[in-house]
Amino acid sequence: MRLAVGIDFGGTAVKLGVVDERGRVRAEASFETASSHGIEGWLAAVAEALRAMKLDLRHLGRELAGIGVGVPGFVDFERGFIHNLTNVPGWTAVPLARLMRRRFGVPTVVDNDCNAMAYGECRFGAGRKFRHAVFLTLGTGVGGGVVLDGRVWRGAHSMAGEIGHIPIDLHGVRTETGRGGLEEYVGNRQIVARARRMLRSRTSILPDLVQGNLRALTPRHLAEAAHRGDALALEVFDYMSDCLATALAGITYLLQPEVFIVGGGVAGAGEVLFGPLRRHLNERLSPFFAERIRVIPADLGNQGGVVGAAALALKG
Amino acid sequence: MRLAVGIDFGGTAVKLGVVDERGRVRAEASFETASSHGIEGWLAAVAEALRAMKLDLRHLGRELAGIGVGVPGFVDFERGFIHNLTNVPGWTAVPLARLMRRRFGVPTVVDNDCNAMAYGECRFGAGRKFRHAVFLTLGTGVGGGVVLDGRVWRGAHSMAGEIGHIPIDLHGVRTETGRGGLEEYVGNRQIVARARRMLRSRTSILPDLVQGNLRALTPRHLAEAAHRGDALALEVFDYMSDCLATALAGITYLLQPEVFIVGGGVAGAGEVLFGPLRRHLNERLSPFFAERIRVIPADLGNQGGVVGAAALALKG
Repeated sequence: MRLAVGIDFGGTAVKLGVVDERGRVRAEASFETASSHGIEGWLAAVAEALRAMKLDLRHLGRELAGIGVGVPGFVDFERGFIHNLTNVPGWTAVPLARLMRRRFGVPTVVDNDCNAMAYGECRFGAGRKFRHAVFLTLGTGVGGGVVLDGRVWRGAHSMAGEIGHIPIDLHGVRTETGRGGLEEYVGNRQIVARARRMLRSRTSILPDLVQGNLRALTPRHLAEAAHRGDALALEVFDYMSDCLATALAGITYLLQPEVFIVGGGVAGAGEVLFGPLRRHLNERLSPFFAERIRVIPADLGNQGGVVGAAALALKG
Repeated sequence: MRLAVGIDFGGTAVKLGVVDERGRVRAEASFETASSHGIEGWLAAVAEALRAMKLDLRHLGRELAGIGVGVPGFVDFERGFIHNLTNVPGWTAVPLARLMRRRFGVPTVVDNDCNAMAYGECRFGAGRKFRHAVFLTLGTGVGGGVVLDGRVWRGAHSMAGEIGHIPIDLHGVRTETGRGGLEEYVGNRQIVARARRMLRSRTSILPDLVQGNLRALTPRHLAEAAHRGDALALEVFDYMSDCLATALAGITYLLQPEVFIVGGGVAGAGEVLFGPLRRHLNERLSPFFAERIRVIPADLGNQGGVVGAAALALKG
């Protein structure tokens, strides 16, 4: 059975995994992003992690399809070239695929992390039955990936899928990426800030959940409160899901995918998010479109980045 | 040289043309949509128009690639099946490609009219040099077509490209197609209504252009006034182009096409539209995306529908 190494290069941790062609993770390792210094240090830490997984790349021969790396930033996929990483200093203009091939002697592909996750979900996760899917991951920001005809759509210059910047309000707040972008409404910080504002004049079980320390409030507390029927928390999810639905309606009218696959921390809230999200999306679409679109949770969880990156390498 | 017949099935007129593989229109004919009755009547009128163009389909043999029809509504492209036409009564659930093949004995493709125009512009018009283009046509509504890798992207159920319904304001006006859809801001009626509202408290040369009869005001008058430097008309174009830019920014972040091709009546206004449109789009994108996107006028004008439909038939 063919294998690939998937590397999920995050701002906090770098996760590695050996993934087989059924999407099963056979071995795992990780290191802290901050613990490696510079590109050479990073390559050394990757080599160390491969050894920790008892993975001798040379001995695998034809079994090893290659290495896939998902990185948080802009990548020229064709060349495996990193333009810039958003939250990792020092990674500007790095020909990572070439450096990896030289160091490890195996084929390497490099892609944006959300593209990798989108592909992983379509190949091995929630999107297995679909050919046209749009993937979103909800967190501090909103990442995205577009899969059309079973292939990641990267756009004219490898930058497509930036769903978090899609404007949902032409009069919205100005940022470096435009005005009224989706993630200014549904990012973790924004939904927590909204709950805090509402708490000034409303009762809720939220203060109890954080022992009165509202600074400690996270989306996880909001999810817990919503599941217990807390009206304020349910309203936050209702508003957030309506903002999401606005962007998804636009994507549906433009591309008509078969399915939206939603992952990331907040998606763990489950039905308190997906229920209103589906309802608002229906309200924001004509019946022709509403009847033909699905919204489902991602399936691969924390392993999505590793499995997705490996899936890109397995595709070759 | 290979030829195809293109048919542009509009709500007012049905235009036909014989188009060669360089996109040149060799012969033209047309009839009023209302003059034909039912589907049989329509097929008879098409046969009559073909005769008027002295086109004996049987004698063309291999020279004739086939017939392409662009229709204003939802089509199942694979089957050449019309689900429903928006403004033409009686055209629901019509297997038009099959009926045409039976009647005329040649291969026939049927597509949404904006998809046909999008493809025509990419094959023979303003989009010749590009592989990834998004086409918009500005009129009463806003139609659209998405071309990726040189092919029309039709979506999971042949309904993609409905750019006019992309929401640009989550709090916007509710319609049957959702809330805050683009065409509620930039449709012909909406921009004329906006000008009329502004005229209640502002001076402008617009009343003179319509001899004081503001009911006669059209986007053409707005364009004329704007070209003469009329501040009110320029503001209408500025606002309209900012609304357009909001939708185009979202499309750019999602798909990163190479180019937007803008056609339709209002696009005839030229720089008073395209100047502010490009400026607002730049403001609404991060520099990475802004530097890599173009906005250009369509090239095929009134022949876009006929040439596009024929181009789809030539593609086969």
